[in-house]
Amino acid sequence: MKFEDFEIVSTASYVPEKTVTNEELTKLFDTTDEWIVKRTGIHRRHVVTNETTSSLCTQVANQLLLKSNLMADEIDLIVVATMSPDYLAPSVSSIVQGNIKAKNAIAIDINTACSGFTYGLHLVRQLLIDNHQKNAILIGGENLSKLVDWNDRSTAVLFGDGAGGVLIRSTVDEGTFIAEDLKTLGSYGDYIVAGYTGRPSPFSSQEVGSPFFKMNGRKVYNFAIEEVPKSINNALAQANLCTDDIDFFLLHQANERIIKRISEKIKISADKFLVNIGEYGNTAAASEAILFDQFVKDKTIKRGNKIVFSGFGGGLSVGTIIIKY
Amino acid sequence: MKFEDFEIVSTASYVPEKTVTNEELTKLFDTTDEWIVKRTGIHRRHVVTNETTSSLCTQVANQLLLKSNLMADEIDLIVVATMSPDYLAPSVSSIVQGNIKAKNAIAIDINTACSGFTYGLHLVRQLLIDNHQKNAILIGGENLSKLVDWNDRSTAVLFGDGAGGVLIRSTVDEGTFIAEDLKTLGSYGDYIVAGYTGRPSPFSSQEVGSPFFKMNGRKVYNFAIEEVPKSINNALAQANLCTDDIDFFLLHQANERIIKRISEKIKISADKFLVNIGEYGNTAAASEAILFDQFVKDKTIKRGNKIVFSGFGGGLSVGTIIIKY
Repeated sequence: MKFEDFEIVSTASYVPEKTVTNEELTKLFDTTDEWIVKRTGIHRRHVVTNETTSSLCTQVANQLLLKSNLMADEIDLIVVATMSPDYLAPSVSSIVQGNIKAKNAIAIDINTACSGFTYGLHLVRQLLIDNHQKNAILIGGENLSKLVDWNDRSTAVLFGDGAGGVLIRSTVDEGTFIAEDLKTLGSYGDYIVAGYTGRPSPFSSQEVGSPFFKMNGRKVYNFAIEEVPKSINNALAQANLCTDDIDFFLLHQANERIIKRISEKIKISADKFLVNIGEYGNTAAASEAILFDQFVKDKTIKRGNKIVFSGFGGGLSVGTIIIKY
Repeated sequence: MKFEDFEIVSTASYVPEKTVTNEELTKLFDTTDEWIVKRTGIHRRHVVTNETTSSLCTQVANQLLLKSNLMADEIDLIVVATMSPDYLAPSVSSIVQGNIKAKNAIAIDINTACSGFTYGLHLVRQLLIDNHQKNAILIGGENLSKLVDWNDRSTAVLFGDGAGGVLIRSTVDEGTFIAEDLKTLGSYGDYIVAGYTGRPSPFSSQEVGSPFFKMNGRKVYNFAIEEVPKSINNALAQANLCTDDIDFFLLHQANERIIKRISEKIKISADKFLVNIGEYGNTAAASEAILFDQFVKDKTIKRGNKIVFSGFGGGLSVGTIIIKY
């Protein structure tokens, strides 16, 4: 049997219970709620207390199984997109595979930073096509609060923790995929740096640098409002669609001002751009998946809707994928 | 145009110049050359002095372009398999993409630890099929010397640094792929742990643990000699091949005793198992690629040879892929 496409069976998300308001951040460094809201759209973020990336992802995987009415051993593939794994070995996806006892699933972690969910959709689709695999779990999961310098007001206000995912089934019929456009701009990788892992050895003078986020906010903003509209337009053109054909745009939740500027640039009413950054902050590879699940749950997004996902960030990387849900 | 298969255009590898002999290790902790050689087959390992995972991988990428007579902008995809990236963002593959100016390539890091090269072959093949992409670079690259506690004689003797890779082209004709068998055993992930990245935040009591390798050597040995023969036999059975049909077995270079025991278990003359662990130690995702390049270079491996790659390790994970080179 040859699979030609995929369909999204179910969505799920899980965030830590603990929230940190902007007001609480004013106790850690010199900032105000007004400043943060105006610059980013963020009011609060969820952060781990005793959770980890793999525990958040395990919650999502278990929800997906339940909602899809599948047994764990029916899962063939688990892909976790993350830039904040618990360990470098074992991978988050392996830990999830063990936790949910998906003994027939192979597990792969990918890292394309904030574009992780769209790159993950691309990858899972390709892995399912023509490969006798039927059911895949794709999760974006992050514990970014451990990569944040909580004394640095320029980055500490931005990030949150959480995980979201989809259960994807391959189909022989018409499926979900419409078009995609992915791009990497590695020459600008130093605009967003996090998680430096260097360490000296008796043979190397490798420096112990900072593991924390360091961003050139202005350059990242310019990159995003330039490259994301281009990527969306490329994907639409491939599918011979115009912006009116799209029901909802689900962009990586990096910054509300970036999303607004992108909606203006591609001349689409801002209300087609679903947004939840106010509640979660930037959760990197998890953000589009958490957003998707939220608006599927509240029935804003309905079966048959045409949806544009667009992720962008570290790498630098940008990825757009258009689906019919 | 629809691509059906892939072929390996060229191979390359790069290791740091600096070598550390077993004798030199006796100055760091209580051990002997004889003990290390007897237990592991390792005589020396190459370790970084001022290199990084991405600098090693960039060397490999440049060699691959040169050997394949391709311009950087003809590359569509760069996948780096690594468990020792320089940063969590940007990814190693993004840095390489930027360094070699492969402006049309999308970049993805994957992490399946020591199975990285075989999982990478699986992934790149699937990404090329039916996807209008033509040329891909797959690199396994590691800087494990920064994940080693150089006071711990049980692990410090085992690992080395290096990178190896292949340039892969999609084809419409008969290609390279014969069969594969991949498996993840996430429940046993704690047998091999490295690169813990946890860190407390003002909101979390996450512990600062050790970033270093911790292994249960006995259990890893048992896992390898049980699961690798199974995986190889599964892949052979799928292809309706017997062991006599295979010219060479290129196993992950974890330990010479493991490789010998596996050759006995599947009843194949040990000289079909190519080995270079004596020179490089365990280089995780890089090991099979470095081995492959070495024996292609010295003309041991010839076009048309049937080759079994089998990677195994952290995850736990195991992956076998059979190709006709």
